[in-house]
Amino acid sequence: VNFTVRILGTSSAHPNANRFPTSHILNIYGKYILIDCGEGTQIQLRKFKIPFGHINHIFISHLHGDHFFGLFGLLSTYELLHRGSDLHLYAPVQLRDMLFSPQSPVKVKELPYKIWFHPLRKGHNLVMEDKNFFVESFELDHRIPTWGFIVKEKKRKPNVIKSKIEEYSLGIEEILAVKRGEDIIRDNGQVIKAKEVTTPAPEPRSYSFVSDTRFFPPVVEHIKGTDLLYHESTFIKKDEDLAAQTYHSTAEQAAMIAKQAGAKQLVIGHFSARYKDTSVFLDEAGKVFKNTVLAYDGLKLEIPLRKISSEE
Amino acid sequence: VNFTVRILGTSSAHPNANRFPTSHILNIYGKYILIDCGEGTQIQLRKFKIPFGHINHIFISHLHGDHFFGLFGLLSTYELLHRGSDLHLYAPVQLRDMLFSPQSPVKVKELPYKIWFHPLRKGHNLVMEDKNFFVESFELDHRIPTWGFIVKEKKRKPNVIKSKIEEYSLGIEEILAVKRGEDIIRDNGQVIKAKEVTTPAPEPRSYSFVSDTRFFPPVVEHIKGTDLLYHESTFIKKDEDLAAQTYHSTAEQAAMIAKQAGAKQLVIGHFSARYKDTSVFLDEAGKVFKNTVLAYDGLKLEIPLRKISSEE
Repeated sequence: VNFTVRILGTSSAHPNANRFPTSHILNIYGKYILIDCGEGTQIQLRKFKIPFGHINHIFISHLHGDHFFGLFGLLSTYELLHRGSDLHLYAPVQLRDMLFSPQSPVKVKELPYKIWFHPLRKGHNLVMEDKNFFVESFELDHRIPTWGFIVKEKKRKPNVIKSKIEEYSLGIEEILAVKRGEDIIRDNGQVIKAKEVTTPAPEPRSYSFVSDTRFFPPVVEHIKGTDLLYHESTFIKKDEDLAAQTYHSTAEQAAMIAKQAGAKQLVIGHFSARYKDTSVFLDEAGKVFKNTVLAYDGLKLEIPLRKISSEE
Repeated sequence: VNFTVRILGTSSAHPNANRFPTSHILNIYGKYILIDCGEGTQIQLRKFKIPFGHINHIFISHLHGDHFFGLFGLLSTYELLHRGSDLHLYAPVQLRDMLFSPQSPVKVKELPYKIWFHPLRKGHNLVMEDKNFFVESFELDHRIPTWGFIVKEKKRKPNVIKSKIEEYSLGIEEILAVKRGEDIIRDNGQVIKAKEVTTPAPEPRSYSFVSDTRFFPPVVEHIKGTDLLYHESTFIKKDEDLAAQTYHSTAEQAAMIAKQAGAKQLVIGHFSARYKDTSVFLDEAGKVFKNTVLAYDGLKLEIPLRKISSEE
């Protein structure tokens, strides 16, 4: 029931000595997915000892270099490591044209593994589904077509209480039935209520990734009630005009989105290099949304299990 | 009279947590040139505080990703920093096709600065000439077309001895004449010998870059007597077969080339990640060529002024 996010890079536009460009690696139930892949992502994956051969799904928000230039190196390294398993890319369609062009930096057709390319589309869409989680995409408001993502845990079945299994000598079929919420009526007329022998599963958790974008309140509907929101925060309030001009957000604006969405926690990153001291971002966001943390390269956040659902 | 080389990356094939891929930055009389530009080069340039906006000439040895994938990020960063000055690229012609294709990762035609592309050619060629130095290219023996480079200081004029200027009250025209090696005959018949009032200039220095290549003795003629030779050393002697198979060199082979070329100093790098302890490279090369140093990310080497030329 692991659900962790490791932020590999927190710079905006261009990297510097302490901040790599954007990339987030998620571990959900032991499966790894990568969101964005700025230059040097493979270096960060090695530094933080991520078994990156196990990444089978890569999501790219938009085609500014600081969000995808690391892909060429990663795809090449997979070749050197003799990767055989398929790799799925979810990205703006122009990336397909680039990678499959004869002038591509990586000769995709000569790779020893297969790339499945899934172009991102307009609107709110389910883009990937696994046994335990799924990923949806939605549009942001940036200078070029840009998408945000929400990674959602699937609703789990209720847990059967161990002592009740013994008390009623529940068989496998009976256990599966009560997990589906069905009451049991035995041949001898005995009734066992599903509610009595189970506890509801924890609420499904979610992680939302919103970068890069101008202050864009329509995003709220896509990420309502999310457990952890990553929102870009390139500027601070005194440079709000510059933020609007360059289609980026301020720390305050990121916090306003978190508040409106009812997020449980906010993590901000993608800081402009113009600010020497990033604590101003935290101060500004914290005034609007208290549970804010400042991202740094390597920050690992665990999304805790939520309170038990009351509906069941 | 600065002539320094800073090695920014020393990994082979793919980077790891401690070693970035290949890139060398040279400072010659305050001018910067970059040789190779693996992924993350701009991060290293920032880490080592190189004023990389001043790089106007970039040389790319071959089109394996670990030698050029950092170029996309660097070109983009120059755009973000509003670079205006021309940039010269010396590289295999396929890089031109890639950068100027509509599917290029960087939209070269939209950059605010001009790129001059100089394709590398067969044979030994002068590829770039500056006031104080010039660069020549020559072919290596790798899996794809690959070039080595030699950066040579120009022969400087003799120095005029200060005390002699005073002794003879030498004028500007006279100083320029003796620097050209011409004796002075004054109107009063006084003869001032150029040799008497000057000391010969130091020998011109050179830096040779040889990566990637199989053991290739023909390279020796291109780098004869070089002051500092960088030679790739991907493997050690026990893996000599693997080196030949993959068109790479061993530490011993690098040292043999240094010895045959009469180099003053050898620096080896491009180490395969298979060797945990790189001291074996130094031990092996040192047996053949004593003045060998082991490269590490950030190593800075100064090429010292040579003994005074005796011919003058």
